[in-house]
Amino acid sequence: MADKKKLVEEITSMEEDFARWYTDVVIKAELVDYSSVKGCMIIKPYGYAIWELMQAQMDARFKATGHENVYMPLFIPESLLQKEKDHVEGFAPEVAWVTHGGSEPLPERLCVRPTSETLFCEHYAKSVHSYRDLPKLYNQWCSVVRWEKTTRPFLRTREFLWQEGHTVHATAEEAVEETERMLNVYAEFCENVLNMPVVKGRKTESDKFAGAVATYAIEALMHDGKALQAGTSHYFGDGFARAFDMTFTDKDNTLQYMHQTSWGTTTRLIGALIMSHGDNSGLVLPPKVAPTQVIVIPIAAHKPGVTEKAQALCERLNGRFRAKVDNTDNSPGWKFAQYEMKGVPIRLEIGPKDMEKDQCVLVRRDTREKVFVPLAELEETVERLLDEIGKNLYARALDNMEKRTYACTTIDEINAVRAEKGDGFIKAMWCGDEACEDAVKEQTGVGSRCIPFAQEKLSDVCVCCGKPAKHMVYWGIAY
Amino acid sequence: MADKKKLVEEITSMEEDFARWYTDVVIKAELVDYSSVKGCMIIKPYGYAIWELMQAQMDARFKATGHENVYMPLFIPESLLQKEKDHVEGFAPEVAWVTHGGSEPLPERLCVRPTSETLFCEHYAKSVHSYRDLPKLYNQWCSVVRWEKTTRPFLRTREFLWQEGHTVHATAEEAVEETERMLNVYAEFCENVLNMPVVKGRKTESDKFAGAVATYAIEALMHDGKALQAGTSHYFGDGFARAFDMTFTDKDNTLQYMHQTSWGTTTRLIGALIMSHGDNSGLVLPPKVAPTQVIVIPIAAHKPGVTEKAQALCERLNGRFRAKVDNTDNSPGWKFAQYEMKGVPIRLEIGPKDMEKDQCVLVRRDTREKVFVPLAELEETVERLLDEIGKNLYARALDNMEKRTYACTTIDEINAVRAEKGDGFIKAMWCGDEACEDAVKEQTGVGSRCIPFAQEKLSDVCVCCGKPAKHMVYWGIAY
Repeated sequence: MADKKKLVEEITSMEEDFARWYTDVVIKAELVDYSSVKGCMIIKPYGYAIWELMQAQMDARFKATGHENVYMPLFIPESLLQKEKDHVEGFAPEVAWVTHGGSEPLPERLCVRPTSETLFCEHYAKSVHSYRDLPKLYNQWCSVVRWEKTTRPFLRTREFLWQEGHTVHATAEEAVEETERMLNVYAEFCENVLNMPVVKGRKTESDKFAGAVATYAIEALMHDGKALQAGTSHYFGDGFARAFDMTFTDKDNTLQYMHQTSWGTTTRLIGALIMSHGDNSGLVLPPKVAPTQVIVIPIAAHKPGVTEKAQALCERLNGRFRAKVDNTDNSPGWKFAQYEMKGVPIRLEIGPKDMEKDQCVLVRRDTREKVFVPLAELEETVERLLDEIGKNLYARALDNMEKRTYACTTIDEINAVRAEKGDGFIKAMWCGDEACEDAVKEQTGVGSRCIPFAQEKLSDVCVCCGKPAKHMVYWGIAY
Repeated sequence: MADKKKLVEEITSMEEDFARWYTDVVIKAELVDYSSVKGCMIIKPYGYAIWELMQAQMDARFKATGHENVYMPLFIPESLLQKEKDHVEGFAPEVAWVTHGGSEPLPERLCVRPTSETLFCEHYAKSVHSYRDLPKLYNQWCSVVRWEKTTRPFLRTREFLWQEGHTVHATAEEAVEETERMLNVYAEFCENVLNMPVVKGRKTESDKFAGAVATYAIEALMHDGKALQAGTSHYFGDGFARAFDMTFTDKDNTLQYMHQTSWGTTTRLIGALIMSHGDNSGLVLPPKVAPTQVIVIPIAAHKPGVTEKAQALCERLNGRFRAKVDNTDNSPGWKFAQYEMKGVPIRLEIGPKDMEKDQCVLVRRDTREKVFVPLAELEETVERLLDEIGKNLYARALDNMEKRTYACTTIDEINAVRAEKGDGFIKAMWCGDEACEDAVKEQTGVGSRCIPFAQEKLSDVCVCCGKPAKHMVYWGIAY
């Protein structure tokens, strides 16, 4: 087991330095690599395969709720970006500008899309005429660019992959419903596919999307107690519609503005699952997004028939699961460590003694529990274990979130909890005043994460000013 | 049928003006829309659904041949683009340059990728060390940008969607094999999925990819007799490897340069299938990439039970096929024309009389043939018809290609054929001299399309100079 030890030693422990642990994992698990383009990452096959699995399962949910995929241009003319005042103020400082096509300067600068509201607005303004054309429920999978100063793989990069839904509706009610529907789709996806519990809520005014009436978000809590915004859903009202002249003729033959939403999730979800489930041996992948669900490793592979048996078991599993066999000449110990690093949910070991007994060994990545399984029961056992692993990951992450969520009624209490327990969610009442929100941040370090839908009344007054409280807010340190 | 006539009249006939017919079809079939970004198109839901079906079926073929998907940055630093001399000369004149991030000028200009060879080279140089790391078989699905002067939807746009495969190998033989393998994958995909016959061959020196040793292509012939390059596969030798210092240690412990390939297909394949199969009623879609394979239309929908029956038949078909029902209050005639325009392979009509007889009517889009089908035999009939439609589309396109391929032995003959028959493939012998290639183009208007793998000896001498011929070449007018 000397090999194994060595490999595992290469990563920093979470407790020692969580940020370095994270960087070590994304590199050693072969998710990403750095390129010479500052702030942009290369998503390697293993990382991209995770994204493809996320995409497929999210896309199926979008289609099941009536959405259609489209593709809008990569570029936005400067004049188009400027049409909605809040939107341009929010995004212009962080966009990449194209000024030349070949050797010719362009008549108008184009920005590389940081998000595509303006393009969708222009398209809807042009293509929707009557209430019969509504709703339009479009989504797009693409990459976007935001010129961030500090970057970290998956969590914050200058270019990232995402999906952006953009819908228009005849009434405000329908648009609000859509905003909530998609937030629920995201939450259900995070819980059932990524095995990651989330808090659903509304962002405060200071934290909402540039141009939105209301921004809803799902917030997850990472291993280190920091919060991560895992997806957002925005209700635009008719703000963009007025700026872009997006009108339609309603049933009464009068001209109305459309009501609009947008919603998005990104490759940062990969960062979220690393920091939700990973441990000091590396990645721990939720079975539904694991590119390899079962890794088959021959033991004493030089003995007759072992390699062939391993190969055969892999093929047998592949009909129902994503299985791979490692028949390289690396030692079993090296392989164990390697696939633990890559977070493969189940390791299947097969050696001469197992073959004699018509059995194999299954080892769970999450608990390291080892079971001997008769080969006749292989498929049903793998099925059951994958299901259990998913549930266990969810339960552990939920436990982490619950343990690290602290109700506080005073600023001093927040500071005491933070000093004693470290990062986590702070639940505290708020009067709704932005000055108090800023003061909490300044005096305790935690910012508002969201006003959760599941409200509780911890006290009658604002944690900061003592005036009557309007909402209970989740506060925290954000990724 | 007044409605139908009116709708159909809206598109220009192919015979009158093929280019306008094409533009009419892409708009009326709701494949694309124009945006305010010059030269970039909006791919609408119906067009994007075709692309998704192409993607899925191509991607399965890439994975079956051992390839993995990755994602490389959108931007390429100017210094990186310049590393391979021929490559930068080929692409620099048509790239979009990013010069600012937010309000800050960048220390180095970045180009928006026109293709990603340079990024893959840099990554392989860094990540491949030993022969054990080879081959690397990567592919990427993304959009690329080339600053074209004249643009047409799908055929030539400033931004387009594509896939680019980039592989590195230990030996030249393996790389050549890969180049050929992927050309064959493309040809098989075009024939079996798009029902479009292609000619496989090698590009002449003047026509190959910037930086390649050899470029192979598949060439298809459109309805109007013009040629369309439907996919390319390049063998790079070690040219890029030398420029990017891409070395590895081989089995004998000596340092070697890697051998490399790249290959790509784009959304122009959608243009190709429009111009291969379409007719004066609009699009005709190959069943394997038709977003809707069967459109169910109720006849006399006001009669009791008809709408419900149409709905039920659609649901019944949806388990096995991509079926939709149109229960809107538009007239049947309008609907017939609408789904003909959209190229739906089979129309299913169901009315009160059919219901009495427990049957329905199926109408093929390609031949307009109408059959009465007992409902008990619905699935098997649809299955058979979809298969027959695919085969018929292929046979018709092959017939068009064969009829429009002319063997010529002199320049005069070429001109006579072109004057009499119009555009098509010209087969003619060539000495291999670039001057003759240019002269043929100048004197007849046709350029070399490829040196087909299936060589024939039409004469001993070059069609232009009369010196000994080296190759038979396909010549034509290219999209």
